Amino acid sequence: MKGCRFFRQKGVHDRMGELTGLFRPGSLAVIGASRARGKIGNAIMRNIIESGYQGKIYPINPKEKEIEGLTSYPSIGAVPGDVDMAVISVPASKVLVAAGECGEKGVKALTVITAGFKETGKEGLDLEKKLLKTCHCYGMQMLGPNCVGLLDTHTPINASFAATFPIKGDIAFLSQSGAILLAILDWSSAAGLGFSKVVSLGNKADLSEIDFIQDAANDPYTRVILCYIEDIVDGARFLEVAGQAARKKPVIVLKSGVSQAGAQAASSHTGALAGSDLAYTTAFAQCGIIRARSMTELFDLAMAFSKSVIPAGNRVAIVTNSGGPGIIATDNVEQKGLAMARFDKKTIEDMRANLPQEAGIYNPVDVLGDAGVERFEFALEKVMIDPNVDSVLFLLCPTAVTRPVEISQALIRVRDAHPDKPVFAAYTGGKCLAEGVEILSSAGIPCFTFPEPAIECIRGLYNYSLYRRGAETAENGVSVKPDKKTVKAVFYDVIKDRRLTLMGSEAAEVASAYGIPAAPVILTTNPEEAVAAAGELGYPVVLKVASPKIMHKTDVGGVKIGIQTPEEVRLAFIEIMESVHRYLPKVIIYGIEVQKMMPKGTELIVGMTRDVQFGPLIAFGLGGIYVNLFKDVAFRLADGLTGTRQIEEMLTETKAYTLLRGYRGESPRDIAAVVDVIRRTARLVTDFPEINEIDINPLFAYEKGLSALDIKITIS
Amino acid sequence: MKGCRFFRQKGVHDRMGELTGLFRPGSLAVIGASRARGKIGNAIMRNIIESGYQGKIYPINPKEKEIEGLTSYPSIGAVPGDVDMAVISVPASKVLVAAGECGEKGVKALTVITAGFKETGKEGLDLEKKLLKTCHCYGMQMLGPNCVGLLDTHTPINASFAATFPIKGDIAFLSQSGAILLAILDWSSAAGLGFSKVVSLGNKADLSEIDFIQDAANDPYTRVILCYIEDIVDGARFLEVAGQAARKKPVIVLKSGVSQAGAQAASSHTGALAGSDLAYTTAFAQCGIIRARSMTELFDLAMAFSKSVIPAGNRVAIVTNSGGPGIIATDNVEQKGLAMARFDKKTIEDMRANLPQEAGIYNPVDVLGDAGVERFEFALEKVMIDPNVDSVLFLLCPTAVTRPVEISQALIRVRDAHPDKPVFAAYTGGKCLAEGVEILSSAGIPCFTFPEPAIECIRGLYNYSLYRRGAETAENGVSVKPDKKTVKAVFYDVIKDRRLTLMGSEAAEVASAYGIPAAPVILTTNPEEAVAAAGELGYPVVLKVASPKIMHKTDVGGVKIGIQTPEEVRLAFIEIMESVHRYLPKVIIYGIEVQKMMPKGTELIVGMTRDVQFGPLIAFGLGGIYVNLFKDVAFRLADGLTGTRQIEEMLTETKAYTLLRGYRGESPRDIAAVVDVIRRTARLVTDFPEINEIDINPLFAYEKGLSALDIKITIS
Repeated sequence: MKGCRFFRQKGVHDRMGELTGLFRPGSLAVIGASRARGKIGNAIMRNIIESGYQGKIYPINPKEKEIEGLTSYPSIGAVPGDVDMAVISVPASKVLVAAGECGEKGVKALTVITAGFKETGKEGLDLEKKLLKTCHCYGMQMLGPNCVGLLDTHTPINASFAATFPIKGDIAFLSQSGAILLAILDWSSAAGLGFSKVVSLGNKADLSEIDFIQDAANDPYTRVILCYIEDIVDGARFLEVAGQAARKKPVIVLKSGVSQAGAQAASSHTGALAGSDLAYTTAFAQCGIIRARSMTELFDLAMAFSKSVIPAGNRVAIVTNSGGPGIIATDNVEQKGLAMARFDKKTIEDMRANLPQEAGIYNPVDVLGDAGVERFEFALEKVMIDPNVDSVLFLLCPTAVTRPVEISQALIRVRDAHPDKPVFAAYTGGKCLAEGVEILSSAGIPCFTFPEPAIECIRGLYNYSLYRRGAETAENGVSVKPDKKTVKAVFYDVIKDRRLTLMGSEAAEVASAYGIPAAPVILTTNPEEAVAAAGELGYPVVLKVASPKIMHKTDVGGVKIGIQTPEEVRLAFIEIMESVHRYLPKVIIYGIEVQKMMPKGTELIVGMTRDVQFGPLIAFGLGGIYVNLFKDVAFRLADGLTGTRQIEEMLTETKAYTLLRGYRGESPRDIAAVVDVIRRTARLVTDFPEINEIDINPLFAYEKGLSALDIKITIS
Repeated sequence: MKGCRFFRQKGVHDRMGELTGLFRPGSLAVIGASRARGKIGNAIMRNIIESGYQGKIYPINPKEKEIEGLTSYPSIGAVPGDVDMAVISVPASKVLVAAGECGEKGVKALTVITAGFKETGKEGLDLEKKLLKTCHCYGMQMLGPNCVGLLDTHTPINASFAATFPIKGDIAFLSQSGAILLAILDWSSAAGLGFSKVVSLGNKADLSEIDFIQDAANDPYTRVILCYIEDIVDGARFLEVAGQAARKKPVIVLKSGVSQAGAQAASSHTGALAGSDLAYTTAFAQCGIIRARSMTELFDLAMAFSKSVIPAGNRVAIVTNSGGPGIIATDNVEQKGLAMARFDKKTIEDMRANLPQEAGIYNPVDVLGDAGVERFEFALEKVMIDPNVDSVLFLLCPTAVTRPVEISQALIRVRDAHPDKPVFAAYTGGKCLAEGVEILSSAGIPCFTFPEPAIECIRGLYNYSLYRRGAETAENGVSVKPDKKTVKAVFYDVIKDRRLTLMGSEAAEVASAYGIPAAPVILTTNPEEAVAAAGELGYPVVLKVASPKIMHKTDVGGVKIGIQTPEEVRLAFIEIMESVHRYLPKVIIYGIEVQKMMPKGTELIVGMTRDVQFGPLIAFGLGGIYVNLFKDVAFRLADGLTGTRQIEEMLTETKAYTLLRGYRGESPRDIAAVVDVIRRTARLVTDFPEINEIDINPLFAYEKGLSALDIKITIS
């Protein structure tokens, strides 16, 4: 390719961590600029100019001399100075040529508005690939194609066709849907929500949410990162980048669309339990992303994180001027896992001395319907300075004497005097309270109509504080020293045998190589071998038919348990063979597995299923035959699952943990050994990406030690 | 009492089912009417006049000749004509005298605004009791005291001090909180919500939510009944009345405040499982009340039920002009247990023939961002007439060419042509769409900013339709023929013995008397008796110490199982006695219970806990020692729990049901027998209100029949 300066792989530029060319270009060109009002090429020109953008602007249009008062150039090559960024809004068929010309000119970044690429089918996808290749070749970053553009309120720049330029603020909003982006811009002005930057991700051919999250994490003007996404292309990098970002500032994501993980026919218990959306939930939680469950919640949380400080704990104080809302809010605080603050003695004494006798002086504080501004301010001040209070919720209902404006001003004074504690408000009413609400919003105190969304916000802030605290005290993992050679040897045999499922003896060997305490198994092919194996393992033993084709061995008489003597072994061997042949005359049988019969312990499951986006997910929970009935399972990403506390926390999410600690007077089980098996399983599936699924079920837990009775491993 | 015409018990008037005196009085007096603006006695006068009330209005004030242009009278006795209703707003100390004068005058109903009664403590409570007695004596109905008053937009009348008279509509709103009532009135005008009547319940000394629900159920102007309540005084009557109302029209309740049921120390499993809020949840569900979980939901549902028809099924069609919101809504429809409609072939063919190639022609239908009004109307019309669609959700985002006003008008035309299907809208945006939203609201199409609340409303409507359908096909219960005499005899002995807990043998006798298949138990006091009992029952047997003081018999060596011979019985008897005496030297032992050892079956629990409001609650679920770990239990009110389908539905809410049907190839259990035991337990606890708690755990279920192994009964 002519003039191609270097060949850049997708994802290289982001390591440089700079999207200056897009957000703060020294100069920019609009290819496809137009004089005609109503055309996108005109809207973009006008938006750039009206946004107050300070750099040079070059409209490019071969048919025009001047557009919106600026000299127009026939091509980007004809522009006299350097061009940092080009916005391309020409028909799809002309984009490739335009991009090439930009490359020749030395443009650093492209924003391709034009649609008609991947989203239209195969031809469009081919065109998109060519466009991406051009960008790589010239080392240009690209936003889009098929996008609305981008805005930055601090540069300022509006390189988009969005009609609304938002209020300046500290929320970076990245949206995979252009329609949602436009709708939210329109809505946000009315809602008083300010943005630092807004990016329409489009087809994400080059730059994706990953790059913009990374950029926003480093952007001093951005306090909250907000994403609407429908898919994630590179799960591993997303987790790395978003995890780093979440340690710096809140990352709130609304992820819609069903994950593809569940689309694979799930042949394992673990796979069936994981379901379609679980990988996202697990991955987001693990890297500290706050997952919004609805658009309402996405923007409520955005407002909360943008306007509020993070509470030090979960203890909420409520101040109200009426009983009903106080009761509703108290219920809701408890339902949401927050706590009603128990006031300091001093606070209660002050309240008792200064509030009317009928007032509620405990939490919730009810200053009564006839409260004047002083009484509101007194109560608010007292709860703010109480050391047992972490956040304050103020509820106002209109009464005959309520003066919302003065009350709002009092609340602002109290908040300003104590800026370390979050303050939220719910003003339930209409016209009466509108001005008071307005004043709070302007002063950055989030104010809702009803108490519940305010409490939801406090919960969101508190949960994030927990994550931050956890991340700060991150522990060192414990390393595992595995015997990889044995695993490779087993897999070699399985592959040679053209199988995808390991036999029980093979699975036990693989597990043992990673220090997972598999009950010993020996594959035998005749009764005498079986007797010898039983002698070696020690009685009693279990005999099981070994065949990759038989899923439910018990159903075909393929299992005999509690075998005590050599004579019983011989008999069992023959009976199993006869029974299986009767049920399945043509099935291939590899022999009979002899397994040492282990004492019964607490039945657990440890398993792994592989998600297409985020890789292996480790499952832990209650095992045995009821695993699918109770679905008592916790999941974690295998990657990095090494810390003891981290794994213990996973255990505590299950009811199985209650059993392990010793349920109803039983002695506790070997929790440390369970933690170790989970760690070793995680390491095994990370070391061998060809492992598709693992089920260790049941894994018996004893007072001392464990025993993995049945291990299923499939590879791909 | 002088002039007392008849003595009326609380609750008598409601059988007459008429609150005409309150809502449609031919004439009314305001006792405590005032000329002074800002006083409540003036606000009430002005509100009544301004509401357009057509009857005679008599202000009562000994110091005035004229108030708000009307002749004032010194006392109600001085009024020339009849007075149907009196609003009392005088100081608390004067209310009693005023009420007495009203009684003498023949007033039918009082609305007592004045505060200072029960809510202030013991003295106030006494005053309230006297007031109530006066009302009863004269046969007057009373609303309040300590309330805001009442409004009826159809009479019209505003006998309250609320500053806002609401829009005329079809929602009856009953609120136990005056503040919430005032706040909602203020808010509703802006939100476009109309009311038929609004009642501030106050202290509910006489009339309560029960009376007003009954009235609203019969009111032709009311389509939806909305309640905010903090407590329910008469649970049984509430259920009866609200249940009848719910069969006529939707009853939506926000219940706040924690129930007192949980405050009793729960000594049984069933009690511990029930928790504090469960009785309300169970009772509401069973009588068809829709329970709102937040104020937002209360009013969203009110709007939905007021403005929308009920869908015939759960199949939702979505029409959108952009992909993102369509995806979000699709996810949400499925999460909420609704279904995305699968269009008829004809619909898809029509869409394909008439929409652009890039449009989404399956559900969700994406008419694309450039859609003109015709395209919207075409797509909406097609999904409306599709027989596989039960409700329609329309999503709009602003684009450059979107014309919200015309689009809203098109949606209204389509809805008007097909009024049988519910239509909801979410217009995501701000100023751009405001006029379009306005038009929809005026036409009675609920329109939200984001899709999720709209879907929540559709779910609420659908769930109500399910209840209505269930109620229409109500089955006849199966009756139980119990042996009450035996139960009475056992309870007689227990009471004489000053115990509250039945021994195992007694509990088994009580259960057997009601046809519950208790494993036979004989109480014995020496080894030879025990041998004789074992001989009678047949071996193997179980021996258990019998003592009302020993809760955990196994822990003190009080249980021996699998006893096969008379010799073993003798030995076991002595060993148990020795062991128990060693652990608990001073405990009272009644003897040893010999129980026939039953084969192991599927372990279930059937139990009962008594709620202070709603009476006995029957529990069914997974039994055994893990009952508190898994909490796999469904609850129903015992009252009326007789129908087979009704009880089967209760079973299906549990995982235990999956086991009963035959889990993983096991043969199914005797579900009919389980249903019968639940029915018989419900009858037992209804017949004997002194039974406080029952735990039948485990109840073994077999392929044929059941066996109740351990039955605990406490009485009070």
